[in-house]
Amino acid sequence: MNRPELPRPSRRGLVRAAVGLAAASAGLRADRAAAEPAAAVEPFHARHQGGITTPAQRYSYFTALDVVSADRGDVVRMLRDWTEAAAAMATGRPVAALADAAIPGADSGETLGLPPARLTVTFGFGPHLFLKDGKDRFGLAAQRPEALAELPRFHGDRLIAARTGGDLSIQACADDPLVAFHAVRQLVRLGYRTAMLRWAQTGFLAGFPGDETARNLMGFKDGTANPSAADATAMAQFVWVGKEGPRWLENGSYVVVRRIRIALDHWDRMPVAFQEQTFGRRKTSGAPLGGEREFDPVDLAATGKEGDPVIPESAHVRLAAAASNGGARILRRPYCYNDGVDFVAERWPPWRQGMAYDAGMFFVCYQRDPRTGFIRIFDRLAQFDMLNQFVTHTGGGVFACPGGIAEGRFVGQRLFEAG
Amino acid sequence: MNRPELPRPSRRGLVRAAVGLAAASAGLRADRAAAEPAAAVEPFHARHQGGITTPAQRYSYFTALDVVSADRGDVVRMLRDWTEAAAAMATGRPVAALADAAIPGADSGETLGLPPARLTVTFGFGPHLFLKDGKDRFGLAAQRPEALAELPRFHGDRLIAARTGGDLSIQACADDPLVAFHAVRQLVRLGYRTAMLRWAQTGFLAGFPGDETARNLMGFKDGTANPSAADATAMAQFVWVGKEGPRWLENGSYVVVRRIRIALDHWDRMPVAFQEQTFGRRKTSGAPLGGEREFDPVDLAATGKEGDPVIPESAHVRLAAAASNGGARILRRPYCYNDGVDFVAERWPPWRQGMAYDAGMFFVCYQRDPRTGFIRIFDRLAQFDMLNQFVTHTGGGVFACPGGIAEGRFVGQRLFEAG
Repeated sequence: MNRPELPRPSRRGLVRAAVGLAAASAGLRADRAAAEPAAAVEPFHARHQGGITTPAQRYSYFTALDVVSADRGDVVRMLRDWTEAAAAMATGRPVAALADAAIPGADSGETLGLPPARLTVTFGFGPHLFLKDGKDRFGLAAQRPEALAELPRFHGDRLIAARTGGDLSIQACADDPLVAFHAVRQLVRLGYRTAMLRWAQTGFLAGFPGDETARNLMGFKDGTANPSAADATAMAQFVWVGKEGPRWLENGSYVVVRRIRIALDHWDRMPVAFQEQTFGRRKTSGAPLGGEREFDPVDLAATGKEGDPVIPESAHVRLAAAASNGGARILRRPYCYNDGVDFVAERWPPWRQGMAYDAGMFFVCYQRDPRTGFIRIFDRLAQFDMLNQFVTHTGGGVFACPGGIAEGRFVGQRLFEAG
Repeated sequence: MNRPELPRPSRRGLVRAAVGLAAASAGLRADRAAAEPAAAVEPFHARHQGGITTPAQRYSYFTALDVVSADRGDVVRMLRDWTEAAAAMATGRPVAALADAAIPGADSGETLGLPPARLTVTFGFGPHLFLKDGKDRFGLAAQRPEALAELPRFHGDRLIAARTGGDLSIQACADDPLVAFHAVRQLVRLGYRTAMLRWAQTGFLAGFPGDETARNLMGFKDGTANPSAADATAMAQFVWVGKEGPRWLENGSYVVVRRIRIALDHWDRMPVAFQEQTFGRRKTSGAPLGGEREFDPVDLAATGKEGDPVIPESAHVRLAAAASNGGARILRRPYCYNDGVDFVAERWPPWRQGMAYDAGMFFVCYQRDPRTGFIRIFDRLAQFDMLNQFVTHTGGGVFACPGGIAEGRFVGQRLFEAG
């Protein structure tokens, strides 16, 4: 099995040169950091990759890429370049000085003068990086964990190939949409001959003040029952890969993403009482049915006067609850998406043909093992959730996200050293 | 010719009822208004519609709709409902109380708890509202100004029908993307049987601090030479329709929108020096070639040692300059757009086939007359601008935006009273 080739001369020199040339605007940024939350910096070199337990930024740009080079050395070089560039951008520095115009090293420049806006870049490896069409392309097949397999086909899945899968994933999250897009754009250019874009998805969250739970496009609070990312014990139990390995994935996690289109036109014409039965929560307060306040416990056993459950059997909150799934929990980090409109023909009531919103949720969740996380939970939801009348999964994927990256190392280095 | 039917009982009662029920969150919003810029309110009832000279908000959701009812009364009722709903939302109130669940009156609820985020809603009327396929559908043909005609086909146009035209336009702008989308979504539902979505486009601006000119996706500052929206004399001269009429459009304006895809993958591989020649400006500073600082005058006459122009003949800044267009000026209000990726096959260098960014600029501009505004300026740009190597116009439209709306009146009321 091949060992990784010696990397070409590091791009760190270039990056460092950039710092000098960008000094004026970097200085500006540093001054501003104290005054403006947007100037806040998320640490890049840490025990875990950023963008997982990081408090959700307002904007996300997610891309999946396919490796088009057959050369393992190309992949290693690209991952090294990506790591250095991501580390630079996380502090608000450009990838390389504009004046260098060193293609493909130069920065495209659109974030000059912008604060880093809490940028995180999260890398993931898809199942096909290890084995594709039975082929061990990069000598990594033996390192593929069993947990990293293509997701099963769920009831109701309508996955579009052009929005599904990928050898690699990059998610940039930031409090400014331009900062997020800029980050991915630089990385894609650095990998120009090695990996190619497969699909991309923008996402956003509204600016709900303080600690208020954000509402999704259906008008309901979303995330009330999420485990707290600040709860290290819960994260160790449900999110971070531990000693069970593989070793290259220790302190990492698995991400499952799903592009969920919501029939907003239909949903908006449903009575609020019906919407609340569907979710199992009140719309305005977010309280579970039978409760008073948002964080009241979800009482799945409560019954009404006639013995019927207060929270319906097929309500979303019941089916998604840990208690209904053998204690299974995942860390959700969803975004709204809004991709305009496209044509929909409906041949039953309301017999409407025309343009409908292509909008909904870009669902992102992290877990220690997809088999006991998303797959276990969603298998039942896909069959029984009342929400299914209004939502369609149209794309997505599963990726293993290695642990945090120490200075001087690159993402996935342990994998390539082991494989 | 028909007079507008008596409108059905006003929805204002409903809206007022909503205020009571939403009192908690409204009070919250009012308290927050003092502290947070996002809580700022743009006036709805004013001499001009909002969203034109309003300092650009961070997010835009633009939609074009087709009227599907043949009944003039339906159109009048819808415009009245739209006006009342837009006025309510501009102050952060929901369209109607959630608890009413009065379909289609109820608010979809996703902005409950959000500040109004400087929401503006700008309405426009397309040429086909007046005359479509030779048919005077609503008795308005005699009121159509000559200036409101379909745009000519420009050199290089690649307009997609599904992203072009429309009888009506609604643009919601706000400092929160959810607030902008929410506004249009309520209006579309209120017009359910009268008008149907034709196309929609999201847009965003990065959060460049203070008065810094925003950069576009090409990495250049965009808008340096824009007339100041605060300059009432310039606005009266170039933006607002005056006594030249028609009377229903007085204090209104014409909006031209163009969805401009940018071949970012190619652009990013061009040397910065070439990019600067293309624009006629420096990338980092924004200074015109031959100048030092961003706001230095653009010297179109300056020549180099060998007599060649300092700003190339086909540079964007030269061709777009008022001096090159008989003094023509427009008020630009562009947004970036980012719609993921789609497949592109290129059969000449760099012979690349695969996914490319469907991203670029959603160009929005206002003018007193499109014939002496956008059409005059863009006709030459479309032929000669060096930028054309990298940009493609894929959709858009032209709409007449009536003047501001007095309390108790609805948008376009004068038109329907005259027609």
